[in-house]
Amino acid sequence: MSLIVQKYGGTSVGSVDRIKAVAERVARGRQAGRKMVVVVSAMAGETNRLFKLASELSDTPDLRETDALVSTGEQVSAALLSIRLQSLGVPAISFVADQLKIATDSNHGRARIKSVECDRVVKELERGRIVVVAGYQGVDANGNITTLGRGASDLTAVALAAALKADACEIYTDVDGVYTADPNLCPRARKLRRVSYDEMLEMAALGAKVLQGRSVELARRYNVPLVVLSSFSDSEGTWVGKEDRSMEDVLVSGVTLDQNQSKITIAGVEDSPGLAAKIFGPIAAAGIVIDMIIQNASADGHTDMTFTVARDDLKRALELMRSIAADIGAAGVRHEAQVAKVSIVGVGMRTHAGVAAKMFNVLAAERINIEMIATSEIKVSVVVNSKYGELAMRSLHDAFVNGGAAVSSAETV
Amino acid sequence: MSLIVQKYGGTSVGSVDRIKAVAERVARGRQAGRKMVVVVSAMAGETNRLFKLASELSDTPDLRETDALVSTGEQVSAALLSIRLQSLGVPAISFVADQLKIATDSNHGRARIKSVECDRVVKELERGRIVVVAGYQGVDANGNITTLGRGASDLTAVALAAALKADACEIYTDVDGVYTADPNLCPRARKLRRVSYDEMLEMAALGAKVLQGRSVELARRYNVPLVVLSSFSDSEGTWVGKEDRSMEDVLVSGVTLDQNQSKITIAGVEDSPGLAAKIFGPIAAAGIVIDMIIQNASADGHTDMTFTVARDDLKRALELMRSIAADIGAAGVRHEAQVAKVSIVGVGMRTHAGVAAKMFNVLAAERINIEMIATSEIKVSVVVNSKYGELAMRSLHDAFVNGGAAVSSAETV
Repeated sequence: MSLIVQKYGGTSVGSVDRIKAVAERVARGRQAGRKMVVVVSAMAGETNRLFKLASELSDTPDLRETDALVSTGEQVSAALLSIRLQSLGVPAISFVADQLKIATDSNHGRARIKSVECDRVVKELERGRIVVVAGYQGVDANGNITTLGRGASDLTAVALAAALKADACEIYTDVDGVYTADPNLCPRARKLRRVSYDEMLEMAALGAKVLQGRSVELARRYNVPLVVLSSFSDSEGTWVGKEDRSMEDVLVSGVTLDQNQSKITIAGVEDSPGLAAKIFGPIAAAGIVIDMIIQNASADGHTDMTFTVARDDLKRALELMRSIAADIGAAGVRHEAQVAKVSIVGVGMRTHAGVAAKMFNVLAAERINIEMIATSEIKVSVVVNSKYGELAMRSLHDAFVNGGAAVSSAETV
Repeated sequence: MSLIVQKYGGTSVGSVDRIKAVAERVARGRQAGRKMVVVVSAMAGETNRLFKLASELSDTPDLRETDALVSTGEQVSAALLSIRLQSLGVPAISFVADQLKIATDSNHGRARIKSVECDRVVKELERGRIVVVAGYQGVDANGNITTLGRGASDLTAVALAAALKADACEIYTDVDGVYTADPNLCPRARKLRRVSYDEMLEMAALGAKVLQGRSVELARRYNVPLVVLSSFSDSEGTWVGKEDRSMEDVLVSGVTLDQNQSKITIAGVEDSPGLAAKIFGPIAAAGIVIDMIIQNASADGHTDMTFTVARDDLKRALELMRSIAADIGAAGVRHEAQVAKVSIVGVGMRTHAGVAAKMFNVLAAERINIEMIATSEIKVSVVVNSKYGELAMRSLHDAFVNGGAAVSSAETV
């Protein structure tokens, strides 16, 4: 008998009618002979409502109390789904994190799962019950309620699937799978049937919102197959798992676009050892994540250093840079508030050369200037002027996904 | 340093502004040097909202799951109050029942408290913190969340006060004390400064809603002084505690009116041993509580039996009675769907004779016919035609509370 962990997001349990639909889906799964653990998010809007109440009572609400507050959203959904399942004649029982000993550290608001006890879940599954679990929450060593960060019900589901050695972890959401590009921006985007953990991780990091990066990491570590599905349809979804040979035939699995990037240049810096540390040390200390870095070839012993940050961090990063520029005697600080990062991702790149070159050719043919480049084993990212972002994405999608299956040797650099 | 347990009801924490007001009251108490434990109900309307969601998903929602669902209301209030206290610079920490080991039996929806562990509360109080506790809930031996019944946050407060040997348990509500009669029906009603546990218990049983009967019982058993206060004003409230000599000077502490009673008569029954058991056994088995009973003097070996039930139980009681009447060959079953029960309560009755007689005189002077009578050591109740209920109440209030301080010996029967 297969054991499946399912996770339903906030939209999927967002109303009484949606909860009824989820219960029917779960009941069908059980009739098909599956043992099932079902993790739920809070009903859509509920978590925001609770955060808002807290913010009306304090400018800086205590984190421990905020966790106790917002974790109720998932407790409500779990109890409601269990009530519905029982009214359909399906034995079910709901649990909060404390009752299942989903143990975390004490970092309220962004706790990390340390361990999950499975005894109780296994016992209830053996009694033939559906086990419904409140996602997003844990309990620390002192019995305090913690939460795992926004969107982290996925993490609860993957952790349970890993601990239970489940056959799969199905993530139900309001889209029906992982796409080769954002279908809203790229009408020719296609749903992927299969994608590897590594590709999914890159895509999540590059702005694809369908799966949370930490959950994919955890799934990869414990080799839990993920399936991304829609709770609004019966279409097949996307399987996320271990890379295999056949995946290498597909050169590019996805094209992503991130319009929330900013570019900063610190110009005319004396090129001396330890320069990068002087510039980037304070940035890291401020908790600002730097994405791409370019150091221009040094002319007269002076150099330009350019890097990108998330747009939300631009203001703080600029303030820091101006003070650093004064300290180290740089010529000045320039910035571009909005640039676009366009990336192609695919494990096929590991075994095929020339992908970057083809990418540059495609963009050159569209007369799009490449401002920065970063590569990893399975992705190539470029920064372009923001206004060309969507065009770049669609051109690359046409060339790599809809058009060319593989790169011919003629195109190799 | 005094230790006080406070309880705030749903209206008192019914909005962000009300929670702010409660936090300020708690902060003032702490500044005055009190150690404080604060028990809160769910925000007004929240418990009903959650019950409604459950009823939309099932005609008979599972009780364990319903408890997990509705207990979140108090968890939210507790966290919000703690957040507000901290933003005022008052150290505070909130707990749910499970974290404080408020142990109950497993009767979901109406669980009874078995024990309360105080170690954690004492530790937090010694650290100078306000301890905020989610009322209404407990945890059973298997770690399931239970609830104690509607309005039972009072019970949580009294149980904590008893376990902590608190100096007092203050019940904050939307009225500012216990009145000699319902002020809405009896404009001359006065607030009581002091009232005994026994009187308060009788008044609660007779329909006064200000305190829940089980809480008063528990307070009496552990000798916890209760104070009923308004969270909307600073007036003095009513002290509920052990009876003392001075209370006996007050003949009648309160007059109550219950319009939710029905009267049933089973007529022409053969008067034989075991008759009452035949009639009332099935009624008790159906969980219907019978209040007053009269058996009319038997004439030709036949008798009439009349009793009252809560109006909600009338339909079921009548069905049972008709089937019993057929079984035992009774002449018939009559009923009056709405009758009024008017009662006077006072520990002074213990030491003063003639109270009942004066009561009958007062009602006779108003030409109100008394249909049934029941007495205990500290109360006299009469059933009258429903339309005379309010008049009876006001006349008795005028005669006993506003008018005569004590009964003269001339009025003794």
